Amino acid sequence: MEDLHIIKIGGNILKNEAILQSTLSDIASLNLSLIVVHGGGKHVDQWMHRIGAEVKMIDGRRITDALSLELAVMNYAGLLNKSIVALLEKQGKTALGLSGADLHCIRSIKRNHPTIDYGYVGDVVEINTDAFSWMIDKKITPVCCAITCDENGQLLNTNADTIAAEIAIALSKFYKINLWYCFEKKGVLSNLEDELSVIENLDHDLYSKMLQEEHIHTGMKPKLENCYRALRNGVQAITITDSEGIKNIPSGSGTKITL
Amino acid sequence: MEDLHIIKIGGNILKNEAILQSTLSDIASLNLSLIVVHGGGKHVDQWMHRIGAEVKMIDGRRITDALSLELAVMNYAGLLNKSIVALLEKQGKTALGLSGADLHCIRSIKRNHPTIDYGYVGDVVEINTDAFSWMIDKKITPVCCAITCDENGQLLNTNADTIAAEIAIALSKFYKINLWYCFEKKGVLSNLEDELSVIENLDHDLYSKMLQEEHIHTGMKPKLENCYRALRNGVQAITITDSEGIKNIPSGSGTKITL
Repeated sequence: MEDLHIIKIGGNILKNEAILQSTLSDIASLNLSLIVVHGGGKHVDQWMHRIGAEVKMIDGRRITDALSLELAVMNYAGLLNKSIVALLEKQGKTALGLSGADLHCIRSIKRNHPTIDYGYVGDVVEINTDAFSWMIDKKITPVCCAITCDENGQLLNTNADTIAAEIAIALSKFYKINLWYCFEKKGVLSNLEDELSVIENLDHDLYSKMLQEEHIHTGMKPKLENCYRALRNGVQAITITDSEGIKNIPSGSGTKITL
Repeated sequence: MEDLHIIKIGGNILKNEAILQSTLSDIASLNLSLIVVHGGGKHVDQWMHRIGAEVKMIDGRRITDALSLELAVMNYAGLLNKSIVALLEKQGKTALGLSGADLHCIRSIKRNHPTIDYGYVGDVVEINTDAFSWMIDKKITPVCCAITCDENGQLLNTNADTIAAEIAIALSKFYKINLWYCFEKKGVLSNLEDELSVIENLDHDLYSKMLQEEHIHTGMKPKLENCYRALRNGVQAITITDSEGIKNIPSGSGTKITL
């Protein structure tokens, strides 16, 4: 099977223009089949603040009301997605920005939680593997933002880590997938106070142990849950790393996640 | 040559959600090769107003400063583009939202005017006809917003009427083009006070005469200049109409523009 590298960029990388530019420049220089996935929640928070609207949270999770959805579509599918596409194209890549609505590429349903109304939040139900396959065949780099769409044409806010994992799972039938979660830290840390305490290999036993000992940062937990689910569902390799760590893909550095 | 219909939707159609939905529903029901182009300037004005920023104009033309560009990308490439794509997909079309940056599909250069600094405004220099052709071959409906990109990765605000005309001109070598400008009026009016005074056929002589007599609305002039330029450069047929007028494409109604 052909190798396919899926790189999710998030966290502070998207907020710092210089780091974003250099990260994209590194990505553009990789002569490999790639899919880029990005989030952008902090941009939405900034805009909510700018117009004096309140960011609603329940248990540390964002509630996507109509205004938040509007700003999410504007920021993720608009400003961030097109800035990333333009920067990749400047470096000679042929990039194509996508929301889940485009080409029906990521179909979702509105989350129906028994007790919490998350608002316009979508859970992924189907990836259009045909669409991704012909883009890759045509040497196009898809750039997927964290907006999906249900079958009624309702746009929905969706976690970008989950989108990356779902694309990876769906395409693992056709490609040997390397999934890279790229954020501001060098990997998963054994000591949150020490930025250099990167765990080289985080298997599920070690993860369970660290979770029990409360050594896993709250924000890292859903990311890692996504990783183990992806590995159990066919994804061949996953690494959590920073923008330095993706420079030498296919080798790269960071924390390897394994079962 | 195969027929290709390019439909530009603008004006109040984009502002009224019910009209937009019904227009897109009509477009989705056309079993024809299509490209959709859309503007959205009024959405940007609303957002500028919302955050208390001033919309800068010189001689009735918008100046695109950094903030206006940001809001243009957010609205055109984000909210409007993805809403249109989602509504078309809901009706069973396979749609793909595009800025000029995606697939290098519309390359522009920053306008360099001798006396007026229009800011981040782009003039189209190249259409990637290969990209549009393979989308059409794949039965994909491209949905193009009014954002283009220069070769340095700078996103630029570009007139949507001009984008429609430029795509039409470039593709007229490969397809028999029908270009439809769809806005809130039934066509070009001979009497601005009478909404029903639609001119059936507006050739260039009649246009010149009406222009001399100041019977052409200021906002209509650049649209018509685009039309005549497109006709002189290979585009086979152009109609200016409203959302009713595109219902029966390929026949349709409105003002036919001819040389």
